[in-house]
Amino acid sequence: MKSTTSTLGILFDLDGTLIDSVYQHVLAWHQALREEGIDLSVWRIHRRIGMSGGLFVDALARETGVALDAARGDRLRRRHAEELLSRLPEIRPLPGAIQLLSALDKAGVPYALATSGRRETADFTLPLLNLRPDVPIVTRDDVAHAKPDPDLFLAAADRLGLSAEKCYVVGDSVWDLLAAQRARALGIGVQSGGYGRAELERAGAYRVYADPADMLLHLDEIGIRFTPPDLLL
Amino acid sequence: MKSTTSTLGILFDLDGTLIDSVYQHVLAWHQALREEGIDLSVWRIHRRIGMSGGLFVDALARETGVALDAARGDRLRRRHAEELLSRLPEIRPLPGAIQLLSALDKAGVPYALATSGRRETADFTLPLLNLRPDVPIVTRDDVAHAKPDPDLFLAAADRLGLSAEKCYVVGDSVWDLLAAQRARALGIGVQSGGYGRAELERAGAYRVYADPADMLLHLDEIGIRFTPPDLLL
Repeated sequence: MKSTTSTLGILFDLDGTLIDSVYQHVLAWHQALREEGIDLSVWRIHRRIGMSGGLFVDALARETGVALDAARGDRLRRRHAEELLSRLPEIRPLPGAIQLLSALDKAGVPYALATSGRRETADFTLPLLNLRPDVPIVTRDDVAHAKPDPDLFLAAADRLGLSAEKCYVVGDSVWDLLAAQRARALGIGVQSGGYGRAELERAGAYRVYADPADMLLHLDEIGIRFTPPDLLL
Repeated sequence: MKSTTSTLGILFDLDGTLIDSVYQHVLAWHQALREEGIDLSVWRIHRRIGMSGGLFVDALARETGVALDAARGDRLRRRHAEELLSRLPEIRPLPGAIQLLSALDKAGVPYALATSGRRETADFTLPLLNLRPDVPIVTRDDVAHAKPDPDLFLAAADRLGLSAEKCYVVGDSVWDLLAAQRARALGIGVQSGGYGRAELERAGAYRVYADPADMLLHLDEIGIRFTPPDLLL
């Protein structure tokens, strides 16, 4: 039996997808906003995690009537980073995250990370994943627009030498899945950021798994082979 | 025009429904569990908030393989309460919560509160609502089984002198809505605890509002009248 290996890549979101950090991000923003006198319900912050900071500010203006100038925006960002740092000891990789990446290495499937966060913030939690040094990591600093624009995933695919159409995007938020659709990649949702299955499916997820451990158990469903074709009868 | 006033009551959940406290509860449990050496993903804790503590322990056993004895359960509960207390300064009533209750007072609609939490924990946040002293408050201490069993809502309806079938249940979690169905009350979902609309509808919500402020804007949709019938032409 003959087979040609098709090239496939995986583009991972970071917070809520590989790292169990969404809720700490949420309460870090809540605290930073409160210090600016902005009372926004916690669930509304949760639903904005993973989207571009600029769009978050626009949503904030609509929902609270508060417009942020650049100085206040910078202060918010700095306080959020400080608050996140203070919660760092609580933050862990999600179950199966490290094992999933290691399985992809064994299967010869290239992958990259793409986050709407800044490199400075991502650097807090990235060490938890023990990544190979050559895994591409694209952050908000590298592109003009973060999610749900497709730029982050397009850049991550490019760093793998693939077109985004050849890639799966794995993410926990509707912003990941909208960005995946705009990049013409297939989206896979994980519930580990706190969104429910129905919301992820409605945003375009082709499959939804509980977390990386659950995705690892079902790699066959997304066409990842561990058995070399020449071993098959 | 003649009209008879139909008797209608409203049974409110507390955390995530009237008080913006779900995410603080989640991270308080996360911290308490970690101190017991139990690593459970944060989103999985989120999805258990509002259910009976005994069922939470059963779910924990399934998801982590850890069985809790009574002493460990007590220690967890105590540490959760302490961690919640340390987060109390961050906790606020949800937008519109106080105004919604006040509107119900004006419309002559009786209401009660019913929470799966213990009275001791509820007492931390209840003062934020400035309730009339005669508003019935039913806690986990008052019934044999908490949500999703119907006991809390049945007891709350009873305290209003109504059958649960005459009441709406307002809650943010699928446990509230399942308990509402079992009590044969109509369920109304609010998204302010972090569940999405689709999940709440699937769990039986007749209507879903963003939060108490949004529900207050739509009281007509659940048949609450502010105009006395004898003023109508």
